[in-house]
Amino acid sequence: MTLTSRQMGQLVKVSLGEEKADLAIINGTLLNVYTGELLPDHGVAIKGERIAYVGKDVGHSIGPETEVIDAAGKTLVPGFIESHLHPDNYYTVYEFLRYCMRGGTTTVVAEWRDVFAHLGYRGIIEYLKSATNQPIKLLAVVPSIEPGSTAAEANIVSVQELRQLLMRHDVLGLGETFWQYVTQGDERVFELFAETLASRKKLFGHASGARNNKLVAYLASGISSCHESTTVEEALEKLRLGIYVLARQGEVRSDLEAISAIRHEGINLRRLVLVSDGVTPKHLVHNGHMEFLVQKAINLGFDPVVAIQMATINAAECLSLDSVIGGIAPGKYADIVVIPDIGTIRAEYVVSNGRVIARDGNLLVRPRKHNFPGWFLRNINLPGKLEAADFAVIVEGPHSEVTVRVIDQVTDLVTRDVRVTMPVSGGEVKVDVSKDILKVAVIDPRRQPGRMFVGLIRGFKMTRGAFATSRPRDSSNIVVVGADEGDMALAVNRIAETMGGIVVCADGKILAELPLPIAGSLTDMPLEAVAQRLDDIQQEVASLGSPFADSHLALVYLTCFAVPFLRISVDGLVDIRESKPVDFIVQD
Amino acid sequence: MTLTSRQMGQLVKVSLGEEKADLAIINGTLLNVYTGELLPDHGVAIKGERIAYVGKDVGHSIGPETEVIDAAGKTLVPGFIESHLHPDNYYTVYEFLRYCMRGGTTTVVAEWRDVFAHLGYRGIIEYLKSATNQPIKLLAVVPSIEPGSTAAEANIVSVQELRQLLMRHDVLGLGETFWQYVTQGDERVFELFAETLASRKKLFGHASGARNNKLVAYLASGISSCHESTTVEEALEKLRLGIYVLARQGEVRSDLEAISAIRHEGINLRRLVLVSDGVTPKHLVHNGHMEFLVQKAINLGFDPVVAIQMATINAAECLSLDSVIGGIAPGKYADIVVIPDIGTIRAEYVVSNGRVIARDGNLLVRPRKHNFPGWFLRNINLPGKLEAADFAVIVEGPHSEVTVRVIDQVTDLVTRDVRVTMPVSGGEVKVDVSKDILKVAVIDPRRQPGRMFVGLIRGFKMTRGAFATSRPRDSSNIVVVGADEGDMALAVNRIAETMGGIVVCADGKILAELPLPIAGSLTDMPLEAVAQRLDDIQQEVASLGSPFADSHLALVYLTCFAVPFLRISVDGLVDIRESKPVDFIVQD
Repeated sequence: MTLTSRQMGQLVKVSLGEEKADLAIINGTLLNVYTGELLPDHGVAIKGERIAYVGKDVGHSIGPETEVIDAAGKTLVPGFIESHLHPDNYYTVYEFLRYCMRGGTTTVVAEWRDVFAHLGYRGIIEYLKSATNQPIKLLAVVPSIEPGSTAAEANIVSVQELRQLLMRHDVLGLGETFWQYVTQGDERVFELFAETLASRKKLFGHASGARNNKLVAYLASGISSCHESTTVEEALEKLRLGIYVLARQGEVRSDLEAISAIRHEGINLRRLVLVSDGVTPKHLVHNGHMEFLVQKAINLGFDPVVAIQMATINAAECLSLDSVIGGIAPGKYADIVVIPDIGTIRAEYVVSNGRVIARDGNLLVRPRKHNFPGWFLRNINLPGKLEAADFAVIVEGPHSEVTVRVIDQVTDLVTRDVRVTMPVSGGEVKVDVSKDILKVAVIDPRRQPGRMFVGLIRGFKMTRGAFATSRPRDSSNIVVVGADEGDMALAVNRIAETMGGIVVCADGKILAELPLPIAGSLTDMPLEAVAQRLDDIQQEVASLGSPFADSHLALVYLTCFAVPFLRISVDGLVDIRESKPVDFIVQD
Repeated sequence: MTLTSRQMGQLVKVSLGEEKADLAIINGTLLNVYTGELLPDHGVAIKGERIAYVGKDVGHSIGPETEVIDAAGKTLVPGFIESHLHPDNYYTVYEFLRYCMRGGTTTVVAEWRDVFAHLGYRGIIEYLKSATNQPIKLLAVVPSIEPGSTAAEANIVSVQELRQLLMRHDVLGLGETFWQYVTQGDERVFELFAETLASRKKLFGHASGARNNKLVAYLASGISSCHESTTVEEALEKLRLGIYVLARQGEVRSDLEAISAIRHEGINLRRLVLVSDGVTPKHLVHNGHMEFLVQKAINLGFDPVVAIQMATINAAECLSLDSVIGGIAPGKYADIVVIPDIGTIRAEYVVSNGRVIARDGNLLVRPRKHNFPGWFLRNINLPGKLEAADFAVIVEGPHSEVTVRVIDQVTDLVTRDVRVTMPVSGGEVKVDVSKDILKVAVIDPRRQPGRMFVGLIRGFKMTRGAFATSRPRDSSNIVVVGADEGDMALAVNRIAETMGGIVVCADGKILAELPLPIAGSLTDMPLEAVAQRLDDIQQEVASLGSPFADSHLALVYLTCFAVPFLRISVDGLVDIRESKPVDFIVQD
């Protein structure tokens, strides 16, 4: 991403008018994100991927072959930067880019956790191939240790693998590491951290809920940003401790509104950055990507200049990339968005790496499609078809009842641990739809194929059928919830057949599904179709009784050890407060 | 400079109170340079070189072995950073540190141009050894190509040497490169630039006088800072172009006052940084270093918070070192200055790398002395003693007069080209004290020892004697000006004898001198003595007639191709406007 000597020579010549620009934008009002000024009658001359000239006197760089965009009455702002995104959100890079490119996003820092969890180091290397040579800059951070991740559950990057990855110019550092690892003094984490810092790269943070001493201790390890602030107080505490606060407005949480009152604190906001963390296919199709966040910040009352800085120069500084992106200045990548005015974030032109890639919401340049190798596509390997009996909850001994630990899904994300005394019938604990006690199972399709754990769950309120997914969060297994064991088997078998996916079924029939054959969690289906399929799935699960606004989100978080309190793995139940396994049967 | 995993573990434990701090500062008002706030009742806990904890609740990190500084009523600010200094200003690292450490400077970015010019790559490597393991952080940039520098005049770093140097953690990039090289498309410079950027390191700028297209073209090469702004307009133009403006207040120029009105522009000043560029021994002894600049900025009307940010966080960000220095935050180096209040920059305590190195202006920790090897000390090698006849200006042919190009010293720095018709007597042009026409000579003591050029100069107004130095600017030669050829020979012979130095003599006697035996341009004499010797030299040269406030400055700049107009080298005269040699005899 750094200038070559040949580029330097060209840029200097174009800037001096000795050679002519490939592309020029003239007569615009330029937002100077460095000074915060709006400068009228400004032009930009572009040679190759880079900006050669910025100023009032662009005419001398324009020749007969120069493509000219007249931006009279328009405003020029830098391309938007997404500093923290998990973009393995059903879609491949190709489909993601088709949407995010239109709105003015020109750089994305991706943390491909699913791909890494499912396929490990070689999976990430392959996926990075799909991200290179695209019309916008797709950079990456290496997924760190996830809460609850073990060799049996997910891949953990080794120090050697990390070192290799950090040598890449498109790898900026280590992805979010939950604060508890640091405060508990996990040596594995410190080794990954030290390796990252020694490579002069970044440690992304995840300080959800950490305050005071614990937050300070966490940040003492060298963390430079966190996207988990949910209040002004939390954001302010982190800014004071010298890190970048990535204000989140996205799929999992939308904290921006709560944080937005920070603009009244009278402090410098140069370390406040807009990120989405994740965007759903539907959101991408309907609202776009970073342009939505910037507009949202403006609508919430941020000065438009500040809002745009939060998605451009602030982000670039946070990533230590301000020498190449984040502002419209000589030598930088020519990433420029032409908008009607500073308060209206609607891209009329998107220039990325010196090319006009979109105009008025239409793509002029296609992203590059990547052909994934077979091993990337076919990696769900259950030993045989599952049957209803595989989902039996067996109780040893002659008991008539047993007290078990049930996952109580109290919100779509939060669970708690409840003890329920259940009858034992024929040596088994059965589903009790009348009490909303359903079965939940985790099945390993890769490392020890077929290994599984079956437990009980309350809150899904399904009265029949089953609901399964091959992309649970922070895990590479298959998770299924069901009111009927036959349907649970059917759902999982169907996922095995499509090499990944989400399936809703009832009464032996598949009601809705989204096959995810790429790494068991992605599809190259067009994003509109994915959004429609997800809507269909939600509707069918709701028709089975699920009360959740996003039932699949509730399903995938069952394996996420970052959210309280009781979670499930292929080895059984885990209490998040203690980070340790707990018994399913507590008394028999 | 990055955290090790062991350090991380310690810092976390101290921050949580599980282990105790080595040093703690309590009850202070903390200047938070990230937010710009003054936070009362704050404490800092330090473990080893680093800050473990910052906040109101430092007590839990204090144990019986913890050294405690009570800062009640005092203000804590980060250690000051000097981002651009040529510290080979007579003094060695040891003497420099003795003074700069007292006032709160805890990081210095040095560009050792003299050492490099005289001794090349191995000289820099040796000098970097003298800078490591010191009580404060001495970092470096590699001297770039100097105007007028040729293989015969000075060392030019090769791409291979640069690559080796950039691999060092204490080398931050390539030093100032004059803009004309870039706008003229010098391939050597582009290669050095590309190598530096590819190492993710910085290009320091020198855009003196460049405006508009030429400035934009220069910056398109990837330059990220410049210390040559002399007006608000110049500073603003550079800030808008996305680089850091290093406002200079130092030995060669003091631009800060002129630039200070920029605070009324209503723009963000986060990319404005205080630098000295150079400080004289006298200034160091009497005024100190960065504390003087910060106080000066405050006295000029900058908000004290902004003034301190200009020497701390802004500088750290400019250098991409804000992950380790520039603010008082967990994980950062414990570089802290305790001052009476935010407007009074007088260090009561200086903490550097976690140690109290100075208190109330007294050093508590000595810098480390370096033993330079013989080749570093003995590198002035004239083939024999010079005699008066060696300084003859011979005119071939039977002329009774000749028109020659005379260096007309119009200010202490600026010269111009004047043509003077001089009588030829016995085949020679002689000094004419009545018309202030003296002789000036450059002698090569290293590469082609004894090679020399003798010309004429006007403006020094010396009526007798000679004045010589072995540390002319951007050159590794000896320069001498004189009214008497015998004294010129004596002065140069004395320099050869002391292996470098500055000598004033008259009537066959040495009036004042400063031997500079280290690399021919430095001494380990105590700084007070150096300052006194320089005063004596100035006084003696003045007594011989010199009108300059700093006669040695005028002498050393005779070889500096960065300042207009007529300069001198061992090959003859050089016209700076054309960057080419010009004839001494223009008509005979």
